[in-house]
Amino acid sequence: MTVSDRWLLPDGVEDILPPLAGRIESLRRDVMDTCQRWGYQLVIPPLIEYLESLFTGTGHDLELQTFKLTDQLTGRMMGVRADMTPQAARIDAHTMGQEGITRLCYAGHVLHTRPRHMLTGRTPIQAGCELFGSESEAADMEVISLMLETLRVSGLPRIHLDLAHVSIYQSLIGDADFNRDTEAAIFDAMARKSVPELDELLGHCPSGSAGARLRELARVSGGTEALIEARRILAGASPELDAALEKLGRVCDMLARDYPEVSVGFDFCELRGYNYHTGLVFAAYVPGHGDSVAKGGRYDAIGSDFGRARPATGFSLDIRALVSLGERVQKRVGAIWAPADEDPALESAISGLRLTETVIRALPDDAGADPAAKGCDRKLVKRGGQWVVEKLG
Amino acid sequence: MTVSDRWLLPDGVEDILPPLAGRIESLRRDVMDTCQRWGYQLVIPPLIEYLESLFTGTGHDLELQTFKLTDQLTGRMMGVRADMTPQAARIDAHTMGQEGITRLCYAGHVLHTRPRHMLTGRTPIQAGCELFGSESEAADMEVISLMLETLRVSGLPRIHLDLAHVSIYQSLIGDADFNRDTEAAIFDAMARKSVPELDELLGHCPSGSAGARLRELARVSGGTEALIEARRILAGASPELDAALEKLGRVCDMLARDYPEVSVGFDFCELRGYNYHTGLVFAAYVPGHGDSVAKGGRYDAIGSDFGRARPATGFSLDIRALVSLGERVQKRVGAIWAPADEDPALESAISGLRLTETVIRALPDDAGADPAAKGCDRKLVKRGGQWVVEKLG
Repeated sequence: MTVSDRWLLPDGVEDILPPLAGRIESLRRDVMDTCQRWGYQLVIPPLIEYLESLFTGTGHDLELQTFKLTDQLTGRMMGVRADMTPQAARIDAHTMGQEGITRLCYAGHVLHTRPRHMLTGRTPIQAGCELFGSESEAADMEVISLMLETLRVSGLPRIHLDLAHVSIYQSLIGDADFNRDTEAAIFDAMARKSVPELDELLGHCPSGSAGARLRELARVSGGTEALIEARRILAGASPELDAALEKLGRVCDMLARDYPEVSVGFDFCELRGYNYHTGLVFAAYVPGHGDSVAKGGRYDAIGSDFGRARPATGFSLDIRALVSLGERVQKRVGAIWAPADEDPALESAISGLRLTETVIRALPDDAGADPAAKGCDRKLVKRGGQWVVEKLG
Repeated sequence: MTVSDRWLLPDGVEDILPPLAGRIESLRRDVMDTCQRWGYQLVIPPLIEYLESLFTGTGHDLELQTFKLTDQLTGRMMGVRADMTPQAARIDAHTMGQEGITRLCYAGHVLHTRPRHMLTGRTPIQAGCELFGSESEAADMEVISLMLETLRVSGLPRIHLDLAHVSIYQSLIGDADFNRDTEAAIFDAMARKSVPELDELLGHCPSGSAGARLRELARVSGGTEALIEARRILAGASPELDAALEKLGRVCDMLARDYPEVSVGFDFCELRGYNYHTGLVFAAYVPGHGDSVAKGGRYDAIGSDFGRARPATGFSLDIRALVSLGERVQKRVGAIWAPADEDPALESAISGLRLTETVIRALPDDAGADPAAKGCDRKLVKRGGQWVVEKLG
């Protein structure tokens, strides 16, 4: 390795420089403050945990995304978190163990062995909210509303929200009773929305069977007309499926009432990225960006894996990605240039200004520096024995 | 592994819960804001890098503290950062490459294979400032002053500051010209301040030799009287050592003038934790806590390892540790309880309040919850057709 490539960073890993780093920090604060004003309390889950606790109830995808480490103190395997939602569920179920409703929020780096999507890096800054202890639709709506609110804070225009219900696929594939390999092939084809493969895998299923319904449903997506079509396809299949479709319908109605500016669509067989979800799931998109900008949903099962069954719903997003996509107007903050003078009166003038302002002190070796190039719009000068702030020439 | 120990966290790794997490976030923001008001610009270095760039110019200790990972995309070895200062130096030398003075600050998790000290965990939240491009004592003083200011913001009373100069030990050990094993044994004994071992290792050195001076110097520590004693021991040794002692004296004078409330001490052979430092170094302590609460100093060499020689000085601290030690008064923030009512007027009252206040919405399944137990001090009630905020009974 030569000197010149010693500082190359791995793919999907980056240095975040000013002013972008400041914009990320500012959005991170605004998102956290928004969550806290909705009653979500901040937790800071650890960067590493034993693999057993990281993967409890989360499924295989997350395992592949997780970097593994050996704990030198015990010899046990640890992982660097790839997702903070299961950590929040563990904290709710075990560490906090509160009765009733618990609302938690968090923000921090997660690490992925490979980029989750060609548009994302391997070190997203995940922020999110999780609501534990309520099975109600009001809880689902609160979480969706808060997600939309954080996207508004991020300056994202024209949000499209995709709704789905994980139990639709799960119920149909369970009824169809395929062997394991076929089931895996169907899951894979469904996740990639490959209609020709699904035709091949499910084409032989008799009309009205679970397999035939799956095949038909995979072709359906869109707005409320898609919901009507899904009701036709799943008519008489099971009370569970009827309930799932009814829930989707009600949430869609609530969204139309409270967020008329958000376009809503349905994707009944959405499976991508939902590792541990059990019910209503949702993902927000913006025009021109192929990956979701925020997503979430119900995951009522993880808590029981930690020894305490708790209904749960929540959402998370990548602050780093939102900053690139959003149209937030960053307040321009000026700064004051102070000379390299050892006058004690200057010291005290600077201390006073720094309570609210940025003051950059010249050092003996940059006396010739250009204050404007350092972001300064004013300077401290001595007039009649007093240090005063003046506009830069 | 049974269900009951699945959620045990590794030693030195913790869940940070409310309200502690909120206090950490609040201090993190205040420290970052302070640094930015002194003209330090925020950067966000990556959580992982290739080992070569993480260890450039940093020495063996950091290598042992760093968790290693394999990059699945290239097969190369990466590490999780154990210290952000070398990352800032890389960013200054390579990524930004600015001429003149560059001031950077950062805050984020770092990861250690073992706790650095029995009082610290393995996942500190490191915050720090680095000043590149100035050799001046004014730069050293700025960094020390800013460090003291952040400790004041943290609510730490009665700071003791230890000053040292890395080149004193380096110069003497170089002159003494021991073989490698002896040198390693002396370094080790010196780091542990083991006077009997140093007597054994250095007792044979003739009076006035570098070895004898090292042995004498190891016994010297304390306030300004220690500086006088060191001047006596090192008299006539070399102009370089004279310059180091003079610099220590001048910085001590400046501190006495600007920070009379801070007690200053000298420890001429301090080596612990200074992995890549080259000149004046400093560490802040508070009574009753054996580990330093913040430390830093000159490290003029790392930049050249990245292909661009730059004078550099800075400091860093662990936000997590500061919150435990400080006496910050946390502003008590109340919250407003809102009932589970679907009245659109309630929705709009809540939206308005949430611009500045925390509003917690009751859900159908926690209608019986105690608002005070959720941190609420007020509630929304309907009076004469209007939603108004009232004090909790």
